[in-house]
Amino acid sequence: MAIVEVSIAPLGTANPSVSAYVAECLRILRDSGLKHQLNPMGTVIEGDLDEILAVIAKMHEAPFAKGVSRVSTLIKIDDRRDSESHSMRGKVAVVTKLLDDS
Amino acid sequence: MAIVEVSIAPLGTANPSVSAYVAECLRILRDSGLKHQLNPMGTVIEGDLDEILAVIAKMHEAPFAKGVSRVSTLIKIDDRRDSESHSMRGKVAVVTKLLDDS
Amino acid sequence: MAIVEVSIAPLGTANPSVSAYVAECLRILRDSGLKHQLNPMGTVIEGDLDEILAVIAKMHEAPFAKGVSRVSTLIKIDDRRDSESHSMRGKVAVVTKLLDDS
Amino acid sequence: MAIVEVSIAPLGTANPSVSAYVAECLRILRDSGLKHQLNPMGTVIEGDLDEILAVIAKMHEAPFAKGVSRVSTLIKIDDRRDSESHSMRGKVAVVTKLLDDS
Repeated sequence: MAIVEVSIAPLGTANPSVSAYVAECLRILRDSGLKHQLNPMGTVIEGDLDEILAVIAKMHEAPFAKGVSRVSTLIKIDDRRDSESHSMRGKVAVVTKLLDDS
Repeated sequence: MAIVEVSIAPLGTANPSVSAYVAECLRILRDSGLKHQLNPMGTVIEGDLDEILAVIAKMHEAPFAKGVSRVSTLIKIDDRRDSESHSMRGKVAVVTKLLDDS
Repeated sequence: MAIVEVSIAPLGTANPSVSAYVAECLRILRDSGLKHQLNPMGTVIEGDLDEILAVIAKMHEAPFAKGVSRVSTLIKIDDRRDSESHSMRGKVAVVTKLLDDS
Repeated sequence: MAIVEVSIAPLGTANPSVSAYVAECLRILRDSGLKHQLNPMGTVIEGDLDEILAVIAKMHEAPFAKGVSRVSTLIKIDDRRDSESHSMRGKVAVVTKLLDDS
């Protein structure tokens, strides 16, 4: 199970707001059916790594379709294969419990 | 207002689990009083950039104090100075609204 | 033309040195024929984005083949489609010239 | 010894070229005297971590001084304290040797 965070930013837009482009990327992710969580700095996705990277490649194209000519995309992969609890929920739960117990 | 995501990973631990080290880092952040949100791939912090970077420098030291000899820390800064709504909540709200409206 | 930086780090290797794993990943990249430059924090690759991401997916697998159970991979894409000079050499040259002229 | 890679990108510049802003940031780094290497996706710096982060904080401000209202800065820290050979040159040399020997 891979957990991947992606953030996509267009460069060279006249306006510093990029939310319209981010929403367009998230529409593609939502329609893919992949389990994901939006946070203020990116979107975390959970699932099969090849499937996730294929959807991210489509998300990366979305700003170009809206007229942008340069896109910066950051992809961070946490791929763990020895633990069934390696999930979005599991990772947050184990750290939160350790914090609460201290 | 700066919004910063940080993720800290020790390298060379015998065990692939790093949650105990992450919890130690988050304790320092919690005690700093800075507004923050934990997500499966990092922690997003909101506030004055200098203050945030000073706390992150302390968080980065925590795994060394637990005997680790190599630490990889990733810091992503989104610093926007033309908009009052540039907050953790604001960023997610504007994108979610655009998604819901589509 | 896309320019992509990738860095791959295994977690839980007991030894903080990861160079043997990095070399294994770079062997795959070298054999791919894609133009690339190694630097102290990652490897920059130039070419067709789909081709680059496919090779990176193979590189990401290499540490698992050497017995690792958790891998953290960071991929940063700079994809610019309005400029012929968007190349590894071009990006460094234009900044260096601006610096030298100041 | 810490090795840090930084990349700084202004958002909302109307023009997709950011080299003038990057050159401004590098001028500050050059004047700091810190050992560094420019590559197509960022700049790698070597030295005392606190000193490096202080210079990066100044670099991050440079685009604002040129009228930009939003800046995205990515900082990747590789901090290793058990090895004298942990340097920009050392990291590249050890991986290159392993590659050549294979």
